[in-house]
Amino acid sequence: MRNTAVLLVSCPDRKGLVAAIANFLYRHNANIVHADQHQDGAAGLFLMRVEWDLAGFDLGLHRFEEAFAPIATEYDLQWHLSLSSVKPRLAIFVSKYDHCLADLLYRWHAGELYCDIPLIVSNHPDTHWLAEAYKVPFQHIAVTKDNKAEAEAAQQALLKAHHVDFIVLARYMQVLSADFIRHWPNRIINIHHSFLPAFHGAKPYQRAYERGVKLIGATSHYVTEVLDDGPIIEQDVTRISHRDDLEDLVRKGADLEKVVLSRAVRWHIDNRILVYANKTVVFD
Amino acid sequence: MRNTAVLLVSCPDRKGLVAAIANFLYRHNANIVHADQHQDGAAGLFLMRVEWDLAGFDLGLHRFEEAFAPIATEYDLQWHLSLSSVKPRLAIFVSKYDHCLADLLYRWHAGELYCDIPLIVSNHPDTHWLAEAYKVPFQHIAVTKDNKAEAEAAQQALLKAHHVDFIVLARYMQVLSADFIRHWPNRIINIHHSFLPAFHGAKPYQRAYERGVKLIGATSHYVTEVLDDGPIIEQDVTRISHRDDLEDLVRKGADLEKVVLSRAVRWHIDNRILVYANKTVVFD
Amino acid sequence: MRNTAVLLVSCPDRKGLVAAIANFLYRHNANIVHADQHQDGAAGLFLMRVEWDLAGFDLGLHRFEEAFAPIATEYDLQWHLSLSSVKPRLAIFVSKYDHCLADLLYRWHAGELYCDIPLIVSNHPDTHWLAEAYKVPFQHIAVTKDNKAEAEAAQQALLKAHHVDFIVLARYMQVLSADFIRHWPNRIINIHHSFLPAFHGAKPYQRAYERGVKLIGATSHYVTEVLDDGPIIEQDVTRISHRDDLEDLVRKGADLEKVVLSRAVRWHIDNRILVYANKTVVFD
Amino acid sequence: MRNTAVLLVSCPDRKGLVAAIANFLYRHNANIVHADQHQDGAAGLFLMRVEWDLAGFDLGLHRFEEAFAPIATEYDLQWHLSLSSVKPRLAIFVSKYDHCLADLLYRWHAGELYCDIPLIVSNHPDTHWLAEAYKVPFQHIAVTKDNKAEAEAAQQALLKAHHVDFIVLARYMQVLSADFIRHWPNRIINIHHSFLPAFHGAKPYQRAYERGVKLIGATSHYVTEVLDDGPIIEQDVTRISHRDDLEDLVRKGADLEKVVLSRAVRWHIDNRILVYANKTVVFD
Repeated sequence: MRNTAVLLVSCPDRKGLVAAIANFLYRHNANIVHADQHQDGAAGLFLMRVEWDLAGFDLGLHRFEEAFAPIATEYDLQWHLSLSSVKPRLAIFVSKYDHCLADLLYRWHAGELYCDIPLIVSNHPDTHWLAEAYKVPFQHIAVTKDNKAEAEAAQQALLKAHHVDFIVLARYMQVLSADFIRHWPNRIINIHHSFLPAFHGAKPYQRAYERGVKLIGATSHYVTEVLDDGPIIEQDVTRISHRDDLEDLVRKGADLEKVVLSRAVRWHIDNRILVYANKTVVFD
Repeated sequence: MRNTAVLLVSCPDRKGLVAAIANFLYRHNANIVHADQHQDGAAGLFLMRVEWDLAGFDLGLHRFEEAFAPIATEYDLQWHLSLSSVKPRLAIFVSKYDHCLADLLYRWHAGELYCDIPLIVSNHPDTHWLAEAYKVPFQHIAVTKDNKAEAEAAQQALLKAHHVDFIVLARYMQVLSADFIRHWPNRIINIHHSFLPAFHGAKPYQRAYERGVKLIGATSHYVTEVLDDGPIIEQDVTRISHRDDLEDLVRKGADLEKVVLSRAVRWHIDNRILVYANKTVVFD
Repeated sequence: MRNTAVLLVSCPDRKGLVAAIANFLYRHNANIVHADQHQDGAAGLFLMRVEWDLAGFDLGLHRFEEAFAPIATEYDLQWHLSLSSVKPRLAIFVSKYDHCLADLLYRWHAGELYCDIPLIVSNHPDTHWLAEAYKVPFQHIAVTKDNKAEAEAAQQALLKAHHVDFIVLARYMQVLSADFIRHWPNRIINIHHSFLPAFHGAKPYQRAYERGVKLIGATSHYVTEVLDDGPIIEQDVTRISHRDDLEDLVRKGADLEKVVLSRAVRWHIDNRILVYANKTVVFD
Repeated sequence: MRNTAVLLVSCPDRKGLVAAIANFLYRHNANIVHADQHQDGAAGLFLMRVEWDLAGFDLGLHRFEEAFAPIATEYDLQWHLSLSSVKPRLAIFVSKYDHCLADLLYRWHAGELYCDIPLIVSNHPDTHWLAEAYKVPFQHIAVTKDNKAEAEAAQQALLKAHHVDFIVLARYMQVLSADFIRHWPNRIINIHHSFLPAFHGAKPYQRAYERGVKLIGATSHYVTEVLDDGPIIEQDVTRISHRDDLEDLVRKGADLEKVVLSRAVRWHIDNRILVYANKTVVFD
């Protein structure tokens, strides 16, 4: 496990920015282990991720904000500091399809996803066995047209009680309300089983099959109030042919969904993602 | 150069079909060098491509239709016979972007595309030099809002005069009229610079950039009267990142367009493509 | 579940072959649901896979060999008949790395791999929990330099007792003896964590890292007596960059290994693979 | 065209490095348009590429070395400064296969490769027509076993006379002598038609065909004295199947070779490549 701090910064692009931040870290004896930056010329934006070893860093993190304030003010920075040693707390929402859930749980168990998973929420009891195999608490909350508000209130209460930091919709087949989503800005990750923006909405594999595409895709994105329209984190595709029927598309697509979703979750955990203009920058 | 015949067949799926066709060819001493078939269970369709060596084949091709008629009638076949020794005649339509044109001409010159190219038609004179380098006749026909009908009439006259069999729109930036298109069913191949159905219509790279997708694509398809909606022949994608600006997308996309279009053209020339239900079967 | 028969055929290429087989099946009222064939011109070989619905097929399968004998003799066929309703019995060999095992078990449980798994054999006890979660018998057989012959005898006894049809080495880190391998011709599937023939043998990821390749791969193949040299069933690659250290290669490679191995296993189960000249034909 | 400077730096990793370089540039009013860095923890190396707009930069470039010397000395930097406005001069070596040559010339003509091409050298006259179409001087220097030293001397004289900066071997089928190569360290780019290190040496497609691989590849690398062993710049692969014969591999591989080589050439021109430990870092 690494004992590092990660600083994500976005601000209007200006001369001297890199020097100012680099000097600040250097003055406090930071050993930078990774740094990446990006200028969006069209938007006039500067974006940066810098990660440094906390061994030898002479600024207590409780005093970081105060010490960093002059630079933050001068350059009009939006910034976020996180510690790689602190595991974020993930809640997984799932319905009946369990391939993404099984994949996330395996990766988490294998140490690939550095987080805690205090909670799985499902509108069906079907995946209980998987939660048990990995010893993760499972909550069944049925959702119908009539009880949706109630169900979401129950979900929110659970999320709060378990101190959840972010949510992954692992093929959760219910549309969350705008109100729910507003509580979790850039903290709900969805996997959509198409190459967005193609086939947004319902039944993407069937529509891909009917359109006769030669590749199918999967897209992970942050959830916003507009369905399947949030900032895209990762996408990938796989080749199909006329020999593949709808069932083959579903099967081949499942492999995509797992890999694409797990990448997005890992990058989120590693604080690699910056969102702006409904897009993401994913720092390498 | 091969001296083979290619038979494309589609019909309602029925028992005995393969045996009937195989027996017919065997009785006439055909040496089958390639055969591929496909059943679309949902549509109840049988599709087949069979290619045989004409050396030793004892049925004169002028008598093929008559000899094959009993089977064709019994099994309600739609069929098409072509000879690999006969070069189809291709007209390329182009505007100012010349990467697809340059690529097609090079491949044709290198022997990769077994066709004649009696004609390049452009609404701009810019690519004349390429036509000259490869010694292909070039016709500049300006197209404006006002003269579109006239221009298309002139194009049609040229196509007829040059005995053209099929047309490739190599980033031709004019929308052809429905009337024009009806003359060339499944004989106009377009390259669209997106992963259809995403970003159909104008400016796909810009819209891809704005949406923040992580892959861009290209799609070759037969042209139908509905814009960017015809049967897809081939698609491919390439990865982009936040570091790629619009210009990078255009450049990376150009490499996709060339490869995807050239594959579609080659398969068309090789009589590998069957169209049904606004989809294609591309036999291996 | 399908109730079909699959016939795999290989023989010297000759005129009339397809007609003979098609007629045979037609005479017995077979409804062909899938057929694929391949001619290897250089080798003078004809290879075929044909699958038909057993509903309506009027030849009892116990009489198939006798009825098919005249054709088999005339055309010098090697052939193999299998029934899609019969689940082959798979034994998985594993060591400590458990990602391929977890993936296979999940796919099997999800119905993607139509087989029985009566046995997991491991030279380490570490993956016992996974076997338990999926309720598959687990046998720990320690292997050392000194007890290898004994250990293999114990493995063979277990395989026999469980009526195992084929073996998957899911990152099993022991080299099997030539004697063991000879008992299972084209019935042991291995996953090697490189793009063979590059980096055959030990530590492929480390050697890939040291060589500075830009893509890493995985290869599934049938095991022969020459290490990492058997007929390749499937391969795939993924992109890496200078930012990926050895640990990243291992992680990214694991995703390849799982997918590549599971494809090979599925194709083997579906009787899609023909082996000749130390290569495979994988029928679509 | 951009008016920027690019600084490539490699040195032992140390605290304060980034701050020192950032401050130096800031003091001279540099507007950084792109910066990327990499730490190789295992090797203890720091590598950086920084590009800044020369408009407003107040340090004359003839004085850069002197002004930068204190930092360079303190941190033990190896560095290289280049100007994006200066076109490097490229000589292309080619034999009979002309697909890579045609591709490079087209890209150069289209403005994708920002360089001058004062010279094409070939041991065969076959590609003269392409050189003429793009108005590039073409020199035919026959190479035999007996005249190799002489031929290389003539080549070197031409390279010198044309002030060539780097060489691209665009499927040049002669092995250059160690003596020749030593004159052009990290300045000769080769395209090898396999996924190195698989199938290094002669006839890679044939050997790939015989081995029965499921993907073929292409590799561009800097030429060193050990054949096909230099630092890899870029690689890519494409899928093949049993249906592809040797001729298909050659054709599909040609598309890979063109794209892979052209990427490597562009990155070299853009000063994106740092070489160390027989590997490359290609900055995004």
